[in-house]
Amino acid sequence: MDRGPPPTSGGRAGTVDVSALETAAARSGSPPPAGASDQTGAEGDRARHEIRFEPAGRTVRVPPRVMLFDAASWNGIAIDSTCGGHGTCKKCKIRVTAGNAPVTSLDTRAFEPDALRAGWRLACRVEVADDLAVEVPPLVTRPKAASVGVGRKVILRPAVQKRFVRLAPPSLADQVPDLERLLAALDDLEVTVELHALRSLAKVLRQSDYEVTAVVVDDVLVDVEPGDTTERAYGIAFDLGTTTVVATLLDLGTGAPLAVESMLNPQQPFGADVISRISAVMLDPGALERLSGLARSALSQLAGEVCAAAGVEPGEVYEVAVAGNATMVQLALGIDPEPLGVAPFILATHRPTTVLASDFGLSVHPRARAVTFPAIGAYVGGDIVSGLLASGMDRDKRIRLFIDIGTNCEIVLGSDERLVATAAPAGPAFEGAAIRCGMRAAPGAIETVGLGDDGVTLGVIGKEEPAGLCGSGLVDAVAELVRVGLLDASGRFVSEDEARAHRPELADRLTTLGQERVFVLAWSGEPGDVGRSVYLTQRDVRELQFAKAAISTGWTILCEELGVEPSSLAQVLLAGSFGSYLSPASAIRLGLVPPIGALRVVVAGNVAGEGAKMALLSVRERAGAMALLEEVEYVELSDRSDFNDRFVDQLPFPT
Amino acid sequence: MDRGPPPTSGGRAGTVDVSALETAAARSGSPPPAGASDQTGAEGDRARHEIRFEPAGRTVRVPPRVMLFDAASWNGIAIDSTCGGHGTCKKCKIRVTAGNAPVTSLDTRAFEPDALRAGWRLACRVEVADDLAVEVPPLVTRPKAASVGVGRKVILRPAVQKRFVRLAPPSLADQVPDLERLLAALDDLEVTVELHALRSLAKVLRQSDYEVTAVVVDDVLVDVEPGDTTERAYGIAFDLGTTTVVATLLDLGTGAPLAVESMLNPQQPFGADVISRISAVMLDPGALERLSGLARSALSQLAGEVCAAAGVEPGEVYEVAVAGNATMVQLALGIDPEPLGVAPFILATHRPTTVLASDFGLSVHPRARAVTFPAIGAYVGGDIVSGLLASGMDRDKRIRLFIDIGTNCEIVLGSDERLVATAAPAGPAFEGAAIRCGMRAAPGAIETVGLGDDGVTLGVIGKEEPAGLCGSGLVDAVAELVRVGLLDASGRFVSEDEARAHRPELADRLTTLGQERVFVLAWSGEPGDVGRSVYLTQRDVRELQFAKAAISTGWTILCEELGVEPSSLAQVLLAGSFGSYLSPASAIRLGLVPPIGALRVVVAGNVAGEGAKMALLSVRERAGAMALLEEVEYVELSDRSDFNDRFVDQLPFPT
Repeated sequence: MDRGPPPTSGGRAGTVDVSALETAAARSGSPPPAGASDQTGAEGDRARHEIRFEPAGRTVRVPPRVMLFDAASWNGIAIDSTCGGHGTCKKCKIRVTAGNAPVTSLDTRAFEPDALRAGWRLACRVEVADDLAVEVPPLVTRPKAASVGVGRKVILRPAVQKRFVRLAPPSLADQVPDLERLLAALDDLEVTVELHALRSLAKVLRQSDYEVTAVVVDDVLVDVEPGDTTERAYGIAFDLGTTTVVATLLDLGTGAPLAVESMLNPQQPFGADVISRISAVMLDPGALERLSGLARSALSQLAGEVCAAAGVEPGEVYEVAVAGNATMVQLALGIDPEPLGVAPFILATHRPTTVLASDFGLSVHPRARAVTFPAIGAYVGGDIVSGLLASGMDRDKRIRLFIDIGTNCEIVLGSDERLVATAAPAGPAFEGAAIRCGMRAAPGAIETVGLGDDGVTLGVIGKEEPAGLCGSGLVDAVAELVRVGLLDASGRFVSEDEARAHRPELADRLTTLGQERVFVLAWSGEPGDVGRSVYLTQRDVRELQFAKAAISTGWTILCEELGVEPSSLAQVLLAGSFGSYLSPASAIRLGLVPPIGALRVVVAGNVAGEGAKMALLSVRERAGAMALLEEVEYVELSDRSDFNDRFVDQLPFPT
Repeated sequence: MDRGPPPTSGGRAGTVDVSALETAAARSGSPPPAGASDQTGAEGDRARHEIRFEPAGRTVRVPPRVMLFDAASWNGIAIDSTCGGHGTCKKCKIRVTAGNAPVTSLDTRAFEPDALRAGWRLACRVEVADDLAVEVPPLVTRPKAASVGVGRKVILRPAVQKRFVRLAPPSLADQVPDLERLLAALDDLEVTVELHALRSLAKVLRQSDYEVTAVVVDDVLVDVEPGDTTERAYGIAFDLGTTTVVATLLDLGTGAPLAVESMLNPQQPFGADVISRISAVMLDPGALERLSGLARSALSQLAGEVCAAAGVEPGEVYEVAVAGNATMVQLALGIDPEPLGVAPFILATHRPTTVLASDFGLSVHPRARAVTFPAIGAYVGGDIVSGLLASGMDRDKRIRLFIDIGTNCEIVLGSDERLVATAAPAGPAFEGAAIRCGMRAAPGAIETVGLGDDGVTLGVIGKEEPAGLCGSGLVDAVAELVRVGLLDASGRFVSEDEARAHRPELADRLTTLGQERVFVLAWSGEPGDVGRSVYLTQRDVRELQFAKAAISTGWTILCEELGVEPSSLAQVLLAGSFGSYLSPASAIRLGLVPPIGALRVVVAGNVAGEGAKMALLSVRERAGAMALLEEVEYVELSDRSDFNDRFVDQLPFPT
């Protein structure tokens, strides 16, 4: 049994006002477009252009070749659009009042020559190559939005569009083919047409008296349904974790989550972490297919469950989004992960390729699309990009640190200028592995520990008898032992004499088992029977120290990179499943996170899954995820000559 | 047994000089782009723009929104390009010396500001919206070309590109992912990437020391192969006929045909013509799947045969082209053909949708593309568009008539101004059906008939004993009987007295069988045993008269439409399988074709198959096929109030 997916800090989605978006603090820079250079780097800043938006009166700085529409969207300036910047709706009309913005061929179709001369352009076609002043007309429609992620408001602009149309039946005088008849009614869209849609078109048109609903995903006509089905359009957001897989069914019309289901990743028998699963593939060529099949079966089972729970036909799910680390996503898609597991640690690709839901083994609409996220590095994958999106790391002026703690720990530091990221190999301590009485976060696991005058207070999952210690319990236990002085700053248990002198109420728990010093957290039935109790060993403390040193070395180096003091951070976001159960106070005490006020340490929850929802609900957010690939600078720790010294410096606990 | 595919008039393909292209007579107008209006019509001419090409000194008139590159290509003006106008190679540099051609974002990447100011543009991005004068630099490379179709030279520019690249292996200092590493070496292409290619990429790169060949079809990276495989790229052109299916394997690097195989369409048991196959689907919903499966199995079997014959791996076939009438193509793709078979006769679509070879059931490269042709009407399908392309009907200044004779007869008349088309229901007479001693063109069929002083001279397929009369024999027989005076102009056999008076050597063959007058072509063993002989009945003659009247009414009306005298036509092209075996002299004598010199009646052969080859060999020709959709004006015969009178006028034979 598992604790299930961690809670999310975002409110439940619904249709809400978007005024918050207008006032949201926004970073001054916009991300470069998805098609830009493959290299990340800081030199982009030198070439940035300024855009002044009126009447908002906001000036933003953007890298060259950003599309104006994206720059506005990214900075909370709302521009009318129904296609989300795809160049099909021709609604994103703005006027360039200063600076050079060449006329494109689409502009010539959207505007009269006089309007072009007056500076009118389609914002989605203006590639920023000059400082610009831009006049944005008032919105014609007030867009719907949903709350999602870490306090994020997402204006609903799903890639899935449904259009109900009534067509005139053909006659000898009007022999326009079925498809062209339909497309003429969708003339604001420039779609390509799937054979799947064409196969059923004749029957659907004739059986529904030419009243049909076209289903368009991005710019592809994937199906035509009889009658008006515009109210029914669904998507599934997947968080494909190494440990847990979570599926959320979303109503794409309202943004509301309709059902959530989760399960353990059935790849577990091949190893708890990504490295052991990659190793399995390296040792046995057939393992790739089996691991791939297991991932697909999990996704498929969850898709069936969320649809059944909400009474939605799987065929009404037209798009899915999958957030996962690089290994999980490559395995699920049948892409050999071996290069991820051995130096020099190479991704198959930064950028997601076009995949269908069926490529993930999903039996939803047969032509449903699948969105995946770009990966920044072998160990900073799509799950982190998704999490950064959900956390708004890319658009917050404050200095914030994002930490996703696990066997591999991903750390991202953002300011209003830059985003820097690294990965730290924290090891399996937080999973309860390599800890003598360690266990996964399951019933019987001690997950919180308090030491006080009245002894030891334990929180146990499922309120059962303590059976072991999970990661959050381990962190709590060590933090408390440091606090009460039974562990010194170097991580060594104090002498029994010293314990008895200072903490007589706990001293009899500090004992030895064989050669090793241990602290007993929960006695077994027989007092004094240390071997059958739940205890913490000196070696366990060392394991935790190594893990926390890896992490704190990571954020220390990132802070230096941005030239900020760790203590001056505005916020630390603890992401991911483990982070959700960690006590901020204990994390601070151990030095796992920088020394800031505990209230500034925020449990962000399952941000990877939240980012997947955002990608489904908004093509702009999806573009934002792609932009993160360009925006985030990856800092490699393993090739730093000073890494070992820095690591040793971080082993002691803060005093 | 079948006579096999008809001969083609085009020479065998090979690498030849393209100077012929430069001097080829070209129509003054270019076709509009594929994305333009769905309506055909003559009003486009009013809005045409003039383009003056220098140093060629040619002025052409084109409809608005044509791309300059296409306009040049279409008029035989060669502009450098390796991508065929896809906007990826940036080689099609020209200078606009007069008229307005807006700078596009691609231009800003291809040219310095000075060059842009001087009028330099990429021809493939200039959408003609003004009268222009254009300077075309000399060709850097002399393109390869192949002879194909009716004397057509096709500059080889297949959609399939192979690129051999040597990549630097990754290192800790160079962690660029596999895909981005490859794409950086293909930076003149902007490709999307198939999951299929990504799945094998890691292994292929590492097992071939990072020396690989990228396979790109259009703008899609479909595969990556170890080592240098650039010499091996193949395509298969299919002529998917109602009666016969023909496959030609082409070397896409040289244009050479490597193997040809054909077979009878296995859908025959569902009926000989398209209407009976559509009826089968209407009567039995399961028939669509069965007919579809039969078509696919035929294509698949032929693909295997041509690959085996030429020693080509099916996985090296990256693209196929399928030319067929609308019913055959819809059936093969599993698109319900019912609306084609009942008034008002509606196509699924004018424009081909994107399909893969696997959608046609082909086991070639798993991501091989399939090209199909646009369809002008329910009975003027992709086979005709393909045939028009192969015949150069769209680029010849002369007044030419294209006739594809079959159960349904397609007729197209072209001048330097317009292309008009119609379909005439000729009935099954030419297939030997509804003819008393009729049979298909198979061994034993009389295919030529000569009447002279020494009696009857017969050509029999397979040099066997005469067993029946096929379509070409029927035409010959009736034409000869008219010539020698045994049939009068109204189509009636003359009296026995008259026969004996004028043609004593043939008179004993003009006899009766039961109530009906017949002419015996081949006596059975027993002289006088008419019933067991091969003969022509008065009713057979009537059947042929109805067929020829349908056809000649068609071309008469088209000639009126263009205001030309039928006798002034420069050329009549007889297309299709049946046309290949028809005697031009007999066709003229019967009035099946206009009264012109027999030398001006040209047997064009299997032009549908030739057009399919052209589409495989050149993306420009493929664009030309799409342009025909806009260019050809369809003339509906069935709603003309004077059709019946015109038809009756055409029943007699010319005198």
